[in-house]
Amino acid sequence: MSKGFDDIISKVSECSVKTVSVAVAEDSAVLEAVKAAKERNIANAILVGDEAKIREVASSINMDLSGFEIIHEPDMIAASLKAVSLAHEGKADMYMKGLIDTKNFLKSVLDKEVGLRTGSPLSHVCVFEVPGIEQLLFLTDVAFMTYPTLEDKVNIIKNTLPVTKACGINCPKIAPLAAVEVVNPKMPATVEASELTRMCAEGQITDCVIDGPLSLDLAIDPEAAKHKGATDRKIQGDADILLFPDIHAGNLVYKAIVHMVPGVKNGCILTGTKVPVILTSRSDTFETKVNSLALAAVVAEEMKKKA
Amino acid sequence: MSKGFDDIISKVSECSVKTVSVAVAEDSAVLEAVKAAKERNIANAILVGDEAKIREVASSINMDLSGFEIIHEPDMIAASLKAVSLAHEGKADMYMKGLIDTKNFLKSVLDKEVGLRTGSPLSHVCVFEVPGIEQLLFLTDVAFMTYPTLEDKVNIIKNTLPVTKACGINCPKIAPLAAVEVVNPKMPATVEASELTRMCAEGQITDCVIDGPLSLDLAIDPEAAKHKGATDRKIQGDADILLFPDIHAGNLVYKAIVHMVPGVKNGCILTGTKVPVILTSRSDTFETKVNSLALAAVVAEEMKKKA
Repeated sequence: MSKGFDDIISKVSECSVKTVSVAVAEDSAVLEAVKAAKERNIANAILVGDEAKIREVASSINMDLSGFEIIHEPDMIAASLKAVSLAHEGKADMYMKGLIDTKNFLKSVLDKEVGLRTGSPLSHVCVFEVPGIEQLLFLTDVAFMTYPTLEDKVNIIKNTLPVTKACGINCPKIAPLAAVEVVNPKMPATVEASELTRMCAEGQITDCVIDGPLSLDLAIDPEAAKHKGATDRKIQGDADILLFPDIHAGNLVYKAIVHMVPGVKNGCILTGTKVPVILTSRSDTFETKVNSLALAAVVAEEMKKKA
Repeated sequence: MSKGFDDIISKVSECSVKTVSVAVAEDSAVLEAVKAAKERNIANAILVGDEAKIREVASSINMDLSGFEIIHEPDMIAASLKAVSLAHEGKADMYMKGLIDTKNFLKSVLDKEVGLRTGSPLSHVCVFEVPGIEQLLFLTDVAFMTYPTLEDKVNIIKNTLPVTKACGINCPKIAPLAAVEVVNPKMPATVEASELTRMCAEGQITDCVIDGPLSLDLAIDPEAAKHKGATDRKIQGDADILLFPDIHAGNLVYKAIVHMVPGVKNGCILTGTKVPVILTSRSDTFETKVNSLALAAVVAEEMKKKA
């Protein structure tokens, strides 16, 4: 079982080499991540964008472009559609955002002809390696779906299962989180958490264990679970997937971890798509971008196995 | 300005010695905290409950009861009403929960004759000292108010201001948090955050600075604020009060900090009451209980000044 990004990166080395197509690649932070991904044998890249600008940016970061395919397309929208079509056609195994705004990037992802739709709504998963916590934590959704309904939460879970599987976890423990660990009819998040738990117990959701509502301490801290006497629960501090009630809760916890926990590592992808999509933000560190590429690579391998 | 619990505890030493009344005091964890509070000159205590049981528990933790007033009242409800009436009458400066369930404890707090009502709704504030973050962080509401309305949020702010003031912060910076830092009409939390910001700018809320909606990185990380170019904002990583959109977001962040950040210290009280109320939970550590008593003591001093 993978427990850290080192394990994910060594999993990558067991896969065939993957290729990422980059939409509007003339972005120094993105090219630096792509360069490192190539050097560390995480992935090759096809760079779609304005070739002159790509060469200029690459030169400014001392990046040797000789090992990369470049497709010249100076128009931003056309470049994103070209880049996504490479993933659509199977010429690339994952798709990454470059110097293009999120709205237009997502338009390319959702394009009916050359995009990456699967029929499932998109959701975001962020994988964390937290010092002191034994298992990897898969947080969802902290960035994309705003106020998921119960149906959306089922889809989020289904989108996340290939990601945990790709990281070596065959039957992940899923904690639908809330402020409390008992159902309170006045708190819809607890009712939905209970409903998801029932759906899993009755076989409507498979290949995982669901136990909620759960407070965060019971989900991630075995000592706290023991102290609270939660010995009858299926999850006792060993949750793999943390399912958040809404984007505010998810995003605030995500940022609390990133900005308060020393030595934390993370990587994120968008799922529910034909291939993993890497949608890093300006504020992500270089290592987070490289980790996201590694995560996408193992997920791409898992999706290929399944297809 | 206080920046850590050491500063809060040294502030306590500048105040007249405070007294806490404890409802149903026959609880070992509570007596241990009360014992330490006395030893560290944080507070004296009046122990209300079953005297024989109090003596038995005290003996089991090697606690010398000679310096404590004990009021014998074996009935739980009667004991809580006696203990709260001491605070109501000014014979105690703060009120603490012992071996009584939260529901009945709160009933005593809200009792119309001997309780601690002020006309304001109750809210909870949790003070954090986080390694690497320069200012103390005042998180509200992570435990009491479930889905605060805009009006509730105004009251939460008013309840929290005496707490920041007691810790030496005269004009705290308040960040109404959300997943994003721009108003999105589809996200009510961002609309309310913007409304609170306007109310403060127009003088409807005073003695503080409010800037929201704010994402957590912009609220607590000056580097992130600089990186995102948020130079026109009133808060740039230096927020004092973190105002959460609802209890799920607040509680999950609170527990993420407690269970993931090494070396963190915290203490919490209930506010909106005539005197500070200490409502620690089983899962709080010994140090958190003592910190909560220290926090309550400086807040009690501040409230006395104001009265």
